Amino acid sequence: MLQAFPILAQMPDLTVFQYNIVDNIFSMTVATMGAAALFFFMGRSLVKEAYRPALMVSGIVVAIACYHYFMIRHSWQDAYALGENGYSGTGAAFNDFYRYADWILTVPLLMVELVAVLRLPAGRARSLLTKLVVAAAAMIALGYPGEVIASPEGWTARVIWGGLSSVPFFYILYVLWVELTNSLKTQPKAARKLIELARLVLLITWAVYPIAYALGGTPAALEAKAGGSVDASGIVALQVGYAIADMAAKAGFGVLIYFIARAKSSADESEGATTDPTLAPAAA
Amino acid sequence: MLQAFPILAQMPDLTVFQYNIVDNIFSMTVATMGAAALFFFMGRSLVKEAYRPALMVSGIVVAIACYHYFMIRHSWQDAYALGENGYSGTGAAFNDFYRYADWILTVPLLMVELVAVLRLPAGRARSLLTKLVVAAAAMIALGYPGEVIASPEGWTARVIWGGLSSVPFFYILYVLWVELTNSLKTQPKAARKLIELARLVLLITWAVYPIAYALGGTPAALEAKAGGSVDASGIVALQVGYAIADMAAKAGFGVLIYFIARAKSSADESEGATTDPTLAPAAA
Repeated sequence: MLQAFPILAQMPDLTVFQYNIVDNIFSMTVATMGAAALFFFMGRSLVKEAYRPALMVSGIVVAIACYHYFMIRHSWQDAYALGENGYSGTGAAFNDFYRYADWILTVPLLMVELVAVLRLPAGRARSLLTKLVVAAAAMIALGYPGEVIASPEGWTARVIWGGLSSVPFFYILYVLWVELTNSLKTQPKAARKLIELARLVLLITWAVYPIAYALGGTPAALEAKAGGSVDASGIVALQVGYAIADMAAKAGFGVLIYFIARAKSSADESEGATTDPTLAPAAA
Repeated sequence: MLQAFPILAQMPDLTVFQYNIVDNIFSMTVATMGAAALFFFMGRSLVKEAYRPALMVSGIVVAIACYHYFMIRHSWQDAYALGENGYSGTGAAFNDFYRYADWILTVPLLMVELVAVLRLPAGRARSLLTKLVVAAAAMIALGYPGEVIASPEGWTARVIWGGLSSVPFFYILYVLWVELTNSLKTQPKAARKLIELARLVLLITWAVYPIAYALGGTPAALEAKAGGSVDASGIVALQVGYAIADMAAKAGFGVLIYFIARAKSSADESEGATTDPTLAPAAA
């Protein structure tokens, strides 16, 4: 598959409007991720110590994504030049690997921030994390060979890689759904609704990835990627879809983690308050 | 040896795929090191004060590496230009010294972070650090003259420098292995498994450096480096090998140091808790 890389990349021609949608969404993603990093880092002091690791990891996830979207945008600008008829390729390839490098680093960390905020018993947290991190790595590694296919003849291979990648993908969603549902009973009442919401946000934002992957890999999209003079809207949809999904799944999900941490912090406190009177006589 | 430097560097021709693997792994290393720096710096507040110097030094190590990989990547991009047949040299040399500057600064600090987290008695820590820092400096200084050899005729000289550099290299591994094994008895139970793991990670990640050095210095690789029209995969293997080893030996090793610090922090705490009842009557 890999020898199929052309020497000069043949990026499909784009209208000024198409080019700018992608360029602008990349910039907005940089701003969103950077702002989210500031929020999670500074928000640490607003939750109890037990929940600070979860916010720290949430902040690191969006900081990594901020770096990658900055580089992705540069690669986009390097790949295109403005001409009389809109934007056409310069011969430099748009670098898909940035996004995969980002996912390799951040998706396992997303699992860590979620498990950290739940504060499950140590043994259960460890076995859960092992399963999730291994599956996340497999999912991303299996998706990449399909993602870099850029010719209509590779469509079948792309579908196969996408299918293989979907196995750990659905496994992760299943494990998270079951675990989040199980953990609800042990969570303070105030956090339950938020965890139910996190469960839903996870399902919806993660659903965007296979859809974007499919949109970017239709035979027409692959023909556009190979420089064919067809409509390039599949490429645009892929980039915009991934960017929006990344903002929701990293910054949006992190905000939910923050609210769960806040709710659990004040639940722990009021619990502490009710036990104080019991301790007071004993201490006296 | 040094007068053999040509004015214009003759970088071997690379395919787009070969160039991109190296370029992408450099970018991913920048992201990994930067994320690790954030993690270690913020993680200081999650361990007891006694272990904060170890995390601070871990963070400084990866911050230095983040800077150097950013510069290494720039040097890589300056050394190559995309043409009709893939990437060929621009005449600017790829700067190997960045990596050696990084190692001169970070390898002694890696020894410091390890000795700091063990919290050995002051006298023993000092004598151990002196041995390790001197050996680390000798190891890097002796490796560099071999690394910059870029002609097949220099192969013997490269092997000799590599051999000389291996003496302090194996001395460091020997000293660390013996010291880590000795320190196990004095460490809290929860930290022992982690220290055994750190001992193993050290041995495995450090083994990559001589292997990468050897791969980048085969007669074929040196011929490619001198601009010969042979396969340049040795150069690619060298860069990828060093980058992965640096990520594991600095960011990965630092994460282990963090877990050791966490385990020892809570061991110190529970020790404190069990002595409290004994102290309470005495205080009353």
